[in-house]
Amino acid sequence: MRLAVIPGDGIGPEVVTEALKVLAEVVPNAETTSYDLGASRWHSTGELLPESVLGELRQHDAILLGAVGDPTVPSGILERGLLLRLRFELDHHVNLRPARLYPGVRGPLADPGEIDMIVVREGTEGPYAGNGGLLRKDTEHEIATEVSVNTAFGIRRVVADAFARAEERPRKHLTLVHKTNVLEHAGSLWSRIVEEVSLEHPDVTVAYSHVDAATIHLVTDPSRFDVIVTDNLFGDIITDLAAAVTGGIGLAASGNLDISRRNPSMFEPVHGSAPDIAGQNLADPTAAVLSVSLLLDHLGEKEAARRIEASVAFDLATRDQSSPGSTQAIGDRLAALVSSNTRQAS
Amino acid sequence: MRLAVIPGDGIGPEVVTEALKVLAEVVPNAETTSYDLGASRWHSTGELLPESVLGELRQHDAILLGAVGDPTVPSGILERGLLLRLRFELDHHVNLRPARLYPGVRGPLADPGEIDMIVVREGTEGPYAGNGGLLRKDTEHEIATEVSVNTAFGIRRVVADAFARAEERPRKHLTLVHKTNVLEHAGSLWSRIVEEVSLEHPDVTVAYSHVDAATIHLVTDPSRFDVIVTDNLFGDIITDLAAAVTGGIGLAASGNLDISRRNPSMFEPVHGSAPDIAGQNLADPTAAVLSVSLLLDHLGEKEAARRIEASVAFDLATRDQSSPGSTQAIGDRLAALVSSNTRQAS
Ligand SMILES: CC(C)[C@H](C(=O)O)[C@@H](O)C(=O)O
Ligand SMILES: CC(C)[C@H](C(=O)O)[C@@H](O)C(=O)O
Repeated sequence: MRLAVIPGDGIGPEVVTEALKVLAEVVPNAETTSYDLGASRWHSTGELLPESVLGELRQHDAILLGAVGDPTVPSGILERGLLLRLRFELDHHVNLRPARLYPGVRGPLADPGEIDMIVVREGTEGPYAGNGGLLRKDTEHEIATEVSVNTAFGIRRVVADAFARAEERPRKHLTLVHKTNVLEHAGSLWSRIVEEVSLEHPDVTVAYSHVDAATIHLVTDPSRFDVIVTDNLFGDIITDLAAAVTGGIGLAASGNLDISRRNPSMFEPVHGSAPDIAGQNLADPTAAVLSVSLLLDHLGEKEAARRIEASVAFDLATRDQSSPGSTQAIGDRLAALVSSNTRQAS
Repeated sequence: MRLAVIPGDGIGPEVVTEALKVLAEVVPNAETTSYDLGASRWHSTGELLPESVLGELRQHDAILLGAVGDPTVPSGILERGLLLRLRFELDHHVNLRPARLYPGVRGPLADPGEIDMIVVREGTEGPYAGNGGLLRKDTEHEIATEVSVNTAFGIRRVVADAFARAEERPRKHLTLVHKTNVLEHAGSLWSRIVEEVSLEHPDVTVAYSHVDAATIHLVTDPSRFDVIVTDNLFGDIITDLAAAVTGGIGLAASGNLDISRRNPSMFEPVHGSAPDIAGQNLADPTAAVLSVSLLLDHLGEKEAARRIEASVAFDLATRDQSSPGSTQAIGDRLAALVSSNTRQAS
């Protein structure tokens, strides 16, 4: 297993260290290469993602990213020049974001019920396509446009993936989230494709929710969701909310997948670089560890993936929520749990 | 005071009846004309918003709308042909949505803190402009686009309005919600205009939040928000969420304002027509009553507006939350409260 690692900025390197510690328990001989990308490289060289680095990244089985970003870098530079560029160059069309309320975890909802959903967010088009522009800049007649680009090809592959995932889950339920009553063209294409693909999955029940209503459901009745499929921007919004109601982005993992496997997929915690707590051994590495679980699952190491997730679930159920321990302590605990689970299993 | 009333579908007529009952307590001589628009008119005549009706609506001081929509009408028809058309034809550029957690109301959050914000949502452009289309329809190469159109003119007038509102509130705080790190052109225009207008309001503090992060804050720390200004689509999403965390869309009122006063503004509860409970005297008319309060405030009847809101607040604090009473009973109670407040005040 050849892994590219992008520790990144802020707490990124700290959480990645713990994630790799846990990985070592299940895949002792993983070969990891670290790439220096993010705020500090940009500051010192002006580079965001050199072609040569991109070429090297492509040679790996998967990429693990910690977090990227720093207040000293103007907003948008690293996001568009590095994070989104990786997603687009590596054709990460399925942005996979599970949201599960683990026993023992207290989120903000008084009565959350059971929450266990996965969001399949389209990752390479929609309003993220980067199409748009400014006209008559700096005059009172200035106009800014942003074009959401949606292709049958791009939608079908993520909808197919979402149905395949729904098929494998006990509830076999899929919800399309969009805003079809207003965005009629994109909405029509998404709806028709969901309808078409659903014919190949007669045992998956299908629901539809407008994105505004979905945010209400996520706080009043999140249990209704099993698999959600949605576009890039709606997915961005509702996955942050889904993470919040399941205990915060400190626990949320994500995978940026090229389902065709032509390019390595990339796994990253949903949280950012949290510069305010960086370097203090304070960050919770759980989301990074769960990202490793998603990575292993994607590479076919289902059993190892399951073992890491089970260890995280156990730790979350038993840890002192108000003081879960330092970054390193949590990493050590999770590594030990995975190790003992591994020994038991073998 | 000449009011146009569009009772609409489902629970619309029921809640409007109660809202007008409350209005009569503070403005006994309001002249109301009812317009039959919505699902039933569309079914019987195919009409959504005839020019002649639009012309008559323009002759009024304000419009009160109940709710529009029915499952028998294909999604999008009434939304685009009636609701959005009214907003665009009447230049309702400020979509005003207060979200306040009234004492006694229990929302879904375990520890909500104090919530008292207003969202100024742009109402006439952005992704709602209706620009976009389908190419190669029904082929595997189909493409759907949606163009978000943002003008300096359109943004400046809502940003100015939001600052003016912030200026009048104790906290004098304004948050721009957008997604500037991805939607760089629209984001740049919104950010620059907020910066410009802020120079005229040195005592208003300004913050920025990405829309995804804003959904997290709305469930983990909603007290941080005072006035939010945002685009049409982001505003649609976060106001539903804001309504949910303050007790549900059953309590949320909104105003579609033409700040220039060239056209009548329109006031409506955020909830829909709820056909499942229509005609059963079950709907809570509180949001419609609060919409009347916004209407009066907009028409300069500040004291009457305040009195209605105070009566609603009193009723919410004292009502039995689990069985607040029938539509009519709540309406009667609110009318009586407003009446006694009015007598006391005069
Ligand atoms: C950092 C930003 C570009 C990114 C996105 O909008 O996709 C982030 O919010 C995410 O969800 O991964
Ligand atoms: C019904 C729909 C067109 C409308 C919108 O999207 O604006 C509604 O959701 C709202 O918020 O008033």
